[in-house]
Amino acid sequence: MAAPARVTLADIYRAHERILPYIHMTPVFTNSTFDKRIGRNAFFKAENLQKTGSFKARGALNAVSNLRDTYISARPVSTVIALKERNPDVPGVVTHSTGNHGQALAWAAKTVGLRCAVIVPHDTPQVKKDAISSYGAELVLCEPTPQSRQETCDKIAKEQGLEFIPPFDYNDVIAGQGTIAMELLKQAPDLDAILVPVSGGGMSSGIAIAAKAIKPGIKIYLVEAEGKMCEKSLRAGERLWPNPPRFLNTIADGIRMQHLGHLTWPILLELAEKDVFSLNDEDMIKGMKFAFQRMKLVIEAASGAAVAAAMSDKLAGMDKEMKNIGVILCGGNVDIEKLPW
Amino acid sequence: MAAPARVTLADIYRAHERILPYIHMTPVFTNSTFDKRIGRNAFFKAENLQKTGSFKARGALNAVSNLRDTYISARPVSTVIALKERNPDVPGVVTHSTGNHGQALAWAAKTVGLRCAVIVPHDTPQVKKDAISSYGAELVLCEPTPQSRQETCDKIAKEQGLEFIPPFDYNDVIAGQGTIAMELLKQAPDLDAILVPVSGGGMSSGIAIAAKAIKPGIKIYLVEAEGKMCEKSLRAGERLWPNPPRFLNTIADGIRMQHLGHLTWPILLELAEKDVFSLNDEDMIKGMKFAFQRMKLVIEAASGAAVAAAMSDKLAGMDKEMKNIGVILCGGNVDIEKLPW
Repeated sequence: MAAPARVTLADIYRAHERILPYIHMTPVFTNSTFDKRIGRNAFFKAENLQKTGSFKARGALNAVSNLRDTYISARPVSTVIALKERNPDVPGVVTHSTGNHGQALAWAAKTVGLRCAVIVPHDTPQVKKDAISSYGAELVLCEPTPQSRQETCDKIAKEQGLEFIPPFDYNDVIAGQGTIAMELLKQAPDLDAILVPVSGGGMSSGIAIAAKAIKPGIKIYLVEAEGKMCEKSLRAGERLWPNPPRFLNTIADGIRMQHLGHLTWPILLELAEKDVFSLNDEDMIKGMKFAFQRMKLVIEAASGAAVAAAMSDKLAGMDKEMKNIGVILCGGNVDIEKLPW
Repeated sequence: MAAPARVTLADIYRAHERILPYIHMTPVFTNSTFDKRIGRNAFFKAENLQKTGSFKARGALNAVSNLRDTYISARPVSTVIALKERNPDVPGVVTHSTGNHGQALAWAAKTVGLRCAVIVPHDTPQVKKDAISSYGAELVLCEPTPQSRQETCDKIAKEQGLEFIPPFDYNDVIAGQGTIAMELLKQAPDLDAILVPVSGGGMSSGIAIAAKAIKPGIKIYLVEAEGKMCEKSLRAGERLWPNPPRFLNTIADGIRMQHLGHLTWPILLELAEKDVFSLNDEDMIKGMKFAFQRMKLVIEAASGAAVAAAMSDKLAGMDKEMKNIGVILCGGNVDIEKLPW
């Protein structure tokens, strides 16, 4: 369960130990054509090759593992056995994401033997429903409004004794995502900076905590979909986003949340650079195409944003001493029947 | 230069030593969904992530490196320096492939500092011409007939003192491709069989020599485009293909040669299984889609054929003791603007 204090490097180490038997230690790729083009060395962390097709598997698995361990330590042995057999009487988890977090939580719950319910607006495309069901989660239909999603989620959680695992504003999720940076800095120890796509900020804050603790001089740059305006808030030192929270108009469904979370915001305010890379759809498609054509990797638009940030004029204008750049390819869940070009 | 004797494991070891500083030791991927579906363990050798996007980089680099070393050892030091600066007076290589071998040879020649000319029918798509030029090769246009290609190639070779490097029927090329199996058997030592796409047979014969020498009990299965009818020739023990050689009608341009080569045929007759996997376009697309959607890898149709072979009823009907299967994803050069679905 979420600890109230801020996530530390020690939490991230423990998370890595907990999840490593089940996740992929994803490879880091380099590309000489890319390096020549940008005049720096890029190190692509391929979380598109992660279980369930995105980094979300890390945070979700850390969260459910911790939950299960807490539950097991409070129960007699016979219940633990039942738990492993997915007895419907034992508690589980619930969320209302139909995207990468929904899939990841379904997979994670199945992996540790917990129940999982996912709240799904009834107009969700069948392909997304199937992806979640394929990991054994139960789908609960709701009206296609943010309010109905949250209410249905709260109701199911209360009625069935399920723990709500939010997509980013949850310490065990942040710690799980931070394991990306621990691996990356083992695989490419000479990094000067990391470009990380940001939505609610779970991945970026986890990466920032781990990377800055391991290598204090490293710079963490956020990569956002145009309209998020992180830079303005970071420079002002306060949350300038309008209320209520809204989704950005972007092809990158992985990074369409406009607000940072309430746990992730103070972390990023302290640890991320004030310069933010802001990408539009055209940039992201350019980034995606480079990965498909030259790196032979299927990536989603949010990953394309990170590639595009590395190719951007903004990065080109930055300090040339910043030689080695980590680029987080956060996921590969794109509909290959409807590629955006 | 090509040795007359048949390629041995020692040649393949030497080739690996020669090319390893420049090529990728490509990763081997596994996929639990796939394994569950086929009831065996598949080990995917990702040559789509190889330099130039296909395994062809291995054989081409081995061939040009050997050529350069032979040349250097016969010349005074001053010429060697000129050679490294790509002085147009020193010899180079030529070929008439506009596909993966053409790109690979252009890249390989550039890597070792030799000239490279590629004969290109004037109706070749601009994207293919650009790919070859981008590696610094000179394009020589010809009429779009097999005869004009070979004649122009012979003429340029003679006039300019260039060595013709054929795509498969050449010992240094075979030895280079064999390095795939050396790596794969280090990465997945418990393999019982390897599924390898076959066109002229350069890759499959190299892999067969290496794998059978390292692990005599391993089975090498050829994966062909429908219409090649390898099985018939292998069972008869003679080349039953009609003359003149023709291209198969398949979406897999990497494996559209109907005949095996004259060097590769006796090797495969001795070392490959008589059972051949024969795949149509629909099968290959199914294989490609699995790789794109579930493995997040961009692969071309020839690689899709190997994936489809692993999913086929034919494999399902084979000995269940054959538990661990190597699957060669030979390349990823597909036009992402025109995916075949």
